[in-house]
Amino acid sequence: MTTLSRRDALSWLGGAVLGGVVAGVGGVVSTAREGFAAKTAASPALWTPHKLDAAECAPLAHAGYWYEGLGCCYGVFESIIGSMGRKHGAPYNQFPFAMMEVGKSGISDWGTVCGALLGAASAFALFWGRKERDPMVTELFRWYEKTAFPMYTPAPGAPGLAGPLPTHVSGSVLCHLSVSTWSLATGIDANSKQRSERCSRITADVAVKAIEIMNAKIDGAFAPGLKSTAEAGCVSCHGKGKASPILKGRMDCTPCHGGSVHVQDKFHKHP
Amino acid sequence: MTTLSRRDALSWLGGAVLGGVVAGVGGVVSTAREGFAAKTAASPALWTPHKLDAAECAPLAHAGYWYEGLGCCYGVFESIIGSMGRKHGAPYNQFPFAMMEVGKSGISDWGTVCGALLGAASAFALFWGRKERDPMVTELFRWYEKTAFPMYTPAPGAPGLAGPLPTHVSGSVLCHLSVSTWSLATGIDANSKQRSERCSRITADVAVKAIEIMNAKIDGAFAPGLKSTAEAGCVSCHGKGKASPILKGRMDCTPCHGGSVHVQDKFHKHP
Repeated sequence: MTTLSRRDALSWLGGAVLGGVVAGVGGVVSTAREGFAAKTAASPALWTPHKLDAAECAPLAHAGYWYEGLGCCYGVFESIIGSMGRKHGAPYNQFPFAMMEVGKSGISDWGTVCGALLGAASAFALFWGRKERDPMVTELFRWYEKTAFPMYTPAPGAPGLAGPLPTHVSGSVLCHLSVSTWSLATGIDANSKQRSERCSRITADVAVKAIEIMNAKIDGAFAPGLKSTAEAGCVSCHGKGKASPILKGRMDCTPCHGGSVHVQDKFHKHP
Repeated sequence: MTTLSRRDALSWLGGAVLGGVVAGVGGVVSTAREGFAAKTAASPALWTPHKLDAAECAPLAHAGYWYEGLGCCYGVFESIIGSMGRKHGAPYNQFPFAMMEVGKSGISDWGTVCGALLGAASAFALFWGRKERDPMVTELFRWYEKTAFPMYTPAPGAPGLAGPLPTHVSGSVLCHLSVSTWSLATGIDANSKQRSERCSRITADVAVKAIEIMNAKIDGAFAPGLKSTAEAGCVSCHGKGKASPILKGRMDCTPCHGGSVHVQDKFHKHP
């Protein structure tokens, strides 16, 4: 790709940052490639996946949610990658697992993506690049949009709260919609321990579905099947190459663009 | 906490999964703790952060976006953790960086959280637990909501597209809103290389702001200051302990609950 040495390339970049040197496109690309190549040598691009027993991992995901309050993203990720580490050692058990608290409550309580889904997608990303991974993520996310959560029943004595919980289909992969629509539908405080228990059970539910998808992928039997009717209609005008190609994303359009009373003007016409 | 050995605890869990054994709460908690403790011994909970030069990292973030198409989340994360690795070696350069492609296009093209923000939050999470990290993430995310992107100007010869790009304030940390409102406001195709260039520059912008926050945190000088007026009003009724405590999240409420024409009923009253 280039004959620049890494030292030359990094020197060049330093010059470029200071505005002192101008070089061609190859220079910058090589700078990035050289830096990344040095790193990649110590850190292989992708790991080898192993099949897991979802029934073994589900209670670990549920317990992981409660472990030191690390939450949903950690719970799913640790139940998958941690389980591989307990069976196969390195590199799985070398991952800095505490990092996966990042997805708790939709990233630091912001309510963006459901952290359980982020934990699963992150685990997938250790093994598969985007071309193979994206359909796996889409299958998992579409399933989440359509599912009445929670489904998992913890074993007697598990951490958290025992007993049944009401279910709800949120229609969205966003933590904000997943939690707030459940609280609105059930009357249960979004800040309650019951709501936390709901999310710990969804952590187990997502781990089970993610492992099902991973196992099928490893077996060469993964066949994505779930579609979004709303998205299909909207992309016919707003997708790539269409009249108004402004749409970014694959989330179901309905919750925010379907005329729900919940997304009307709450600042001036609030009930 | 418990006197169960790890072997006992894991045996117990196996029994619980099969429905054959019932134990008290201590049993399950210990199971999780024992498994996690075994892992944590090999993988320290949190790493030590190092200050970085944002001006050095910005072009790496921009180039990282373009590197093998790994995208925004990888670009920000690699510019931070990769830079520490190039200067300080392990554990930073041992991270399986390819995993961070996970955030590309809001996670596998789903348009949830902006991947650049996820890359920064994930880097923070390697060093700080939620109590310290959450205000850092909130400062970064609030800044993102209010900023006219993109700001970064690549050096001559950088990968991607040269030349000026129009800016827009999206008001949201979600990739879907960030990209689609920019495309609507500017008339530039969401699938174009110009839009990719916009996102590669935001990758640099977010890296710079994240490093500013990290450096201040390391110096003991981090003082969060940004607020959301809309959220403040909404939580007065929908927050913890209030009349209708259903609100989960910290995203600005305005884009989806402010009466915008864009979130009216697009299925039946479409222009």
